[in-house]
Parts: sequence; structure tokens; C-alpha cells
Amino acid sequence: MNVLTTLAADNQPAGDESPEALVARLATAGRAAQRVLARLTDVRKAEALRAAAGMLRAAERDILEANAQDIAAAEAKGLTGAMLDRLRLDAGRLAGIADAVEQVAGLPDPVGEVISKSERPNGLQLSRVRIPIGLIGIIYESRPNVTADAAALCLRSGNAVLLRGGSEALQSNRAILAAMVAGLEQAGVPAAAVQLVPTQDRAAVGAMLTAAGLIDMIVPRGGKSLVARVQADARVPVLAHLDGICHTYVHASADPEMARRIALNAKLRRTGICGSMETLLLDTQFPASAQVVKALADAGCELRGDSRAQALDPRVLPAGDEDWDTEYLDAVLSVAVVDGLEAAMDHVAAHSSHHTDAIVAADPAAAERFLAEVDSAIVMVNASSQFADGAEFGLGAEIGIATGRLHARGPVALEGLTTYKWLVRGTGQERP
Amino acid sequence: MNVLTTLAADNQPAGDESPEALVARLATAGRAAQRVLARLTDVRKAEALRAAAGMLRAAERDILEANAQDIAAAEAKGLTGAMLDRLRLDAGRLAGIADAVEQVAGLPDPVGEVISKSERPNGLQLSRVRIPIGLIGIIYESRPNVTADAAALCLRSGNAVLLRGGSEALQSNRAILAAMVAGLEQAGVPAAAVQLVPTQDRAAVGAMLTAAGLIDMIVPRGGKSLVARVQADARVPVLAHLDGICHTYVHASADPEMARRIALNAKLRRTGICGSMETLLLDTQFPASAQVVKALADAGCELRGDSRAQALDPRVLPAGDEDWDTEYLDAVLSVAVVDGLEAAMDHVAAHSSHHTDAIVAADPAAAERFLAEVDSAIVMVNASSQFADGAEFGLGAEIGIATGRLHARGPVALEGLTTYKWLVRGTGQERP
Repeated sequence: MNVLTTLAADNQPAGDESPEALVARLATAGRAAQRVLARLTDVRKAEALRAAAGMLRAAERDILEANAQDIAAAEAKGLTGAMLDRLRLDAGRLAGIADAVEQVAGLPDPVGEVISKSERPNGLQLSRVRIPIGLIGIIYESRPNVTADAAALCLRSGNAVLLRGGSEALQSNRAILAAMVAGLEQAGVPAAAVQLVPTQDRAAVGAMLTAAGLIDMIVPRGGKSLVARVQADARVPVLAHLDGICHTYVHASADPEMARRIALNAKLRRTGICGSMETLLLDTQFPASAQVVKALADAGCELRGDSRAQALDPRVLPAGDEDWDTEYLDAVLSVAVVDGLEAAMDHVAAHSSHHTDAIVAADPAAAERFLAEVDSAIVMVNASSQFADGAEFGLGAEIGIATGRLHARGPVALEGLTTYKWLVRGTGQERP
Repeated sequence: MNVLTTLAADNQPAGDESPEALVARLATAGRAAQRVLARLTDVRKAEALRAAAGMLRAAERDILEANAQDIAAAEAKGLTGAMLDRLRLDAGRLAGIADAVEQVAGLPDPVGEVISKSERPNGLQLSRVRIPIGLIGIIYESRPNVTADAAALCLRSGNAVLLRGGSEALQSNRAILAAMVAGLEQAGVPAAAVQLVPTQDRAAVGAMLTAAGLIDMIVPRGGKSLVARVQADARVPVLAHLDGICHTYVHASADPEMARRIALNAKLRRTGICGSMETLLLDTQFPASAQVVKALADAGCELRGDSRAQALDPRVLPAGDEDWDTEYLDAVLSVAVVDGLEAAMDHVAAHSSHHTDAIVAADPAAAERFLAEVDSAIVMVNASSQFADGAEFGLGAEIGIATGRLHARGPVALEGLTTYKWLVRGTGQERP
């Protein structure tokens, strides 16, 4: 099968079409396709995704060939090892991508769920039901797996999607998308329900960000600079994850061994994920602070502390002001000694990015106060902040972890890709 | 009591303070006050609002004096009758404002509601609980009642609020706010939980719109040009109501008398509200279209129709293309004759502002298809679109009707002023 030709022909900018005109054309087609998609049953949407997964497997040769072109071009441009690694596909990775699409097919469909119901004294029957958001724009870097993941989550929840991946991955993304579309079409999903912005022109990103009324929500997936640019320029609502400056506070009542284990896991299990701990707050009354710090230093973690933290272990370096606001994403940790729960919560309020913050405490009153008063998307008691993840939360998959305050917070999966409408059933009521 | 002096002294721009610095100072104080507010119980918040209502009544003389100053200045500036009327307070209107605050005190507090709960196989207990959004900015025109309404709704749901009203109402707003603050403080709510931006400098609005990270959400309350400006310039998320281009489609199966009554009510009960019908779609198969059109024309409604609608009654004027996209807010209606349900829904999809759209039909299959497929914030069957209102929906009050797609749609009351956080209760779990 050669899946590349059709798609490339369909979506190419026509002649001297501007990025705005291109985005408007694709978005208009996407919105029309979404109206068809919104009428499909749960079963049909799941079938369509299974067919898409099947076609991803069937198109292995085409996809890996397209990826080889991207890799060759990236090497010629002098891309570094980590970036090349994210771009590279092989048979195993592609099988993983297809499996993930199939898993999304198996998730429960949130569309149609009745959120609330009431009857008014005049007999009007009110209900609020979940519906898809509409057309979702995904802006991401050169990770071809995002193409399939994001498309699957959007489609499962009845949304059309407009994808704009990093230009280095364009051939890979085209091939992945063409395979998926071939599967989706077998199940009656219009091809325009999932489209790729096919130009390498960076102005297309700007056109997406300002396409209010055409694109309903933008989800940026990538590093801080990408997300910051999207947030600064967008006129379309953005569901974004910016920083994960996560704190763990060890209360006076904490079990020392639990505190040690949680601190090691929260910082060092994987240092590069957004839920990893970046600041450890040790209560002055916690008797085993030195052991926790020792365990982290012994495990190879670089520690930067205030003067009281430095007194706990000679390996603790002095922290600068900026350390309390830094997401290291590395084996580096800032450590402060705090005078009680209130001081810990003040530090969290001042420095947290409101992603995930945790307390280790045996005293339930302290734990419940922390849960009640710390205002982060995820607040944990006696658990590693590395659990901040859609799959670990039982959501099946996630489109991202939202650090904003509106619409959806924390791990966002299918429900976060829906909105609602009010249905009012009357029998001829006029308003007095 | 003279409530004006303290507040005026507190919030005035200090020396050559820029609008950005002023907004940042007020927002920082508001955020700190919100942390206190978030810890207050339901009962305390309700008490505080009742005390605020009491002080609004007690400060009648001060408030009406301040309002008289605004009125005199507005008259000197040559303000028109309708604008003066919106600005003017009297004892009856002020009593209504105080009553409304008391009613909000009686509404159930959404904060703390558990939205969902689950337990993971590893024993982690997850829950999602409602919390206040944080600091809400309200930007509105010269209607002093909005000052009290918006403040009450924000406070009831645990939010701090930064108010920026039209400059013509500045003295009235100051006096209303000072009275409310005096009541709130009696009940332990910090004064900075509800603040007015005290300058007439329009740059302060721009400073609010770009105060991302300081203001969590902006709610514009006012006409289209205000809302459009806010949406265009805001970096802070906006909960906005733009247009109400509401359709009523009369299906072939509609009861003729019901169709006539609903059409009259939907258009003419009050023409200036956002839920009033702006376009009537009559099915070619509906036998009583002429009677419905006649009833509207007899009632004094100007009708603008397509050629088939014009054939129904000589009083139907020809409609131009722009009529299908116009929110008249007046006794003017566009009328089209459509070929069946599908064509009606196509017209709605093309021209609706997705506020409220209705079908009149005796055939339940047609009604349910309309409910399922029309994608508006409110979709109605056999009822007047004028029911699109928070109080009519049983929400008690509304901060506005949202026509966007994210966070909250349709009438937005206390629940729409909340967000949620995830609570995770563990027993020492580390992530494998």
C-alpha cells in the first residue's frame, strides 16, 4: 500500500495560498467532518480507531520509509542525538503506537453522558449532556507518536483534529496520518476529521493560534518555549501544561522510612517528567531530615539548600533565589527547612507551579489541612508525586496535564476533550 | 455612616503608579485575601453576604448621594436617556440590589463538592473536589447593580474579585463596594477580597486583560463592543457572552397554536434580551406558517424574509444576506422557509451564534434529532427561547450566559465560578 500520495495531494497549499487561508480551508473541512463524527455511535467510533490501528500496522513499510527520509534530512541538518531519537521510528515503536490507538478505542466514550438533570416548576425538563468540543488544534514537536496519540484521543471523544507537528517529522506524520485515515474511512469517519497542516511554513502555527471561531481549542504538546509561545500568541483557548515545580513537604509526624522512600522515588525514579519533585520541604520538627538528605545525596542527587538544609549534610550546596522557582527536570533538588505546616504551605503558595504538591504526614489533621488549603491541580498525601499521570489516575491515556485553572486541571483525558450543552424539553411553555 | 473615605484612600493609585503596577498591587492583595476566603465555611460566607446586604441598606443615603454625583457629571457630559437610566439609583433599586445579594447568600455553596472518586489497584484514593477559581476580574459598563451582583456571586463561591466598572459610575460603585466591604469585614472576610480598580484611566482595563498569573478569569459584562475588545486583547481566560442569534424552527409536526404562541413569546416578550428569537425557520410542510407570520406582523413585529416567507404575508420585507447573521435585539425578525429538519439544522449550523436554538415539534423523533445534533449552549424543544436565563434554569442567579465552548456554557452561576483539584490519599506508595 502506498498511502502517501492521496493525502499529500489533498492538503497541499494551493498555489500562493497564505497560511491563514490554508488553515481556514482545513479548519472549515474539519468542522464539517466533525458534524458527521458527532453523529456516530460509540461503537462506530471505537471500530474506526481499531481499523486505524490495523492500518498503522499494515502500513509499516511506508511509515518506516517516510521516517527514514525525515531521519536522513535531520542528520543532514545536524540534529542532536536526543532529538534524533525522539524522531526515529522502528517496527517496535510503530507497534507501540498502533497498540496505543487500540487502547484508546477501548476507553469509555464520554459523549452523551448526562451531567445533571432537573425539572422546573413550570414543567420544563432540563439536562446537561456531554458533547465534543469541536475542532481541536494540536501543536507539537518532532515526535511522530503524538500524531497518532492525539488524533486517537480527539476522535474517541467525537472531536475533529488539526495537527501541526514539528517540520522535521513531516514525512513520518504524513505517513502515519494517511494510514489512520485509510482505516477511519473504512468505518465511515470522513477523512477531514483528522488533518495535518502540510506546510513547513512556521506562519501556519500563528494562523492556527489566531483562528478563533474556526478552531475551538489548542493543545500544545512540547517544551516550555513552545507552550509559552502558544500561550502568548493564542486567541483560541489553550489547554496547556507549563511548568511542573512540584513540592514534597515532610511534616513533623511523617514516618521517617516512608519519607525517605517517597523522596527518593519522587525525585529520582525519572527526573525528566513533569511530576518529579523539584523542591523538598523538611519540617524543623521532623527528626529524620538528615537521613532523607543523606539518602538523596548517596543516590547521586545534587542538592541545593537554604542554610538550615546545608547544615544537614556537607554535600548540600547553597541555593540561590532562582532555585525555588526552577524546574530542573534532572537529578537536582532544592531543599528548604520550614517551621511547620503553615510555613510549608506559604512556600508552596509562593513557588509552586500548581501542578502537583505532596505532604508526607502520619497526622491526619495536618494531611487534611494540606489537601484543603494547597491550591494545585493535584495535591497528594503520603505518595510520590511521580504518580501525576493520566494512566496512573485510571484515565487510560492523557492528552496532557493542564496547569491552568479553567475547564480541566491535572491529567486531561477524554472528559477534558468534551464540553456540554443544556437540553430543555417543554410542552409549549411561554415565559411569563 | 460615611463609607467612602477609607476605600478611596486605600485603593487610589500611589503617586505616578502605572495602571499595570496598580492592577498588580490590587491583584496581589486580592489573591492573598482569596486564600483566607477559601478557608471560610459555607455558613461564614453566607453570613458575610447577609451582613453586606444589611450594610447596603444602612448606607442608602451615602450610596444615593454618590450616585447623584455620578448622575450630575453624566448629565453635564451629555449622556443619553437610556444610559442615564442604567446609571441611576433610587431607594427601590438599591433595595433590589441588597435583596439580590441576600438571595445569593441563600444559594448552595458549590465549593467542596466531590465531583468524582475512585480507588486505584495500588490503594491510592483519588477524588476531584470543587474549589474556587481564585481572583476573578469583572469588566462592565455603567450599571452600579453589577458591582453588587458580581461581587456577591464571586464571594459566594470563594473567589476574590477585582471590579472595573464604567467610569461614569465610579462614585456609585465606590459607595456600594464600601458598604459591602464594611459588612463583609464584620464576618471576617478581608476587605481585599472585593476591590474596585479606582482609576478612570482606560489603560487599567488593558492591564487587567494582560494580568495572566495574577487574574485567573475575566468576565466582561456589557455590550458587544466591550466583549469583543476584551476577547481580542485578553491574555487571561475570558468567560464571555458575545451574540444571541437564536433560532426557532417550526417542524411540520408542530401544533399550530403552540407554534404561534411560542413564536410570539420568543420574539416579543422582551426583544432586548439575548435569548430572544432573531430568526424563525418555518418548515415547508408546516401547514400554519401564514398564521404564525400574521400573528407576528399583527403584533407589530417587522419581518424580513426569503422569497418563500414573503409569499406568506405581504408585510414580510425582503431579507438581505446580513439579516441571517444579525442580532436585532428589537421587534425585528428574519424568517426563512426551509425544506425539512436537515435543512433547518444546516441553517442553524451556518448562522447560529450557538447561544439558544429551539424546535417546535409534536414528532418526538424530530425533536430528539434536533436536540442531539444542534450544537448550541442551550437547545430547546417546545419552549420559548426567552427561558434562556440562569434564574429560569433554577441556578438562582447568573454571572452571565457563556457562548464559548470551554469551562462553562449557557447560564453560568456559582458552579461556573469554580474549578477543581485532584486529591490523592496514599499510604506511602512509590511509583514503580
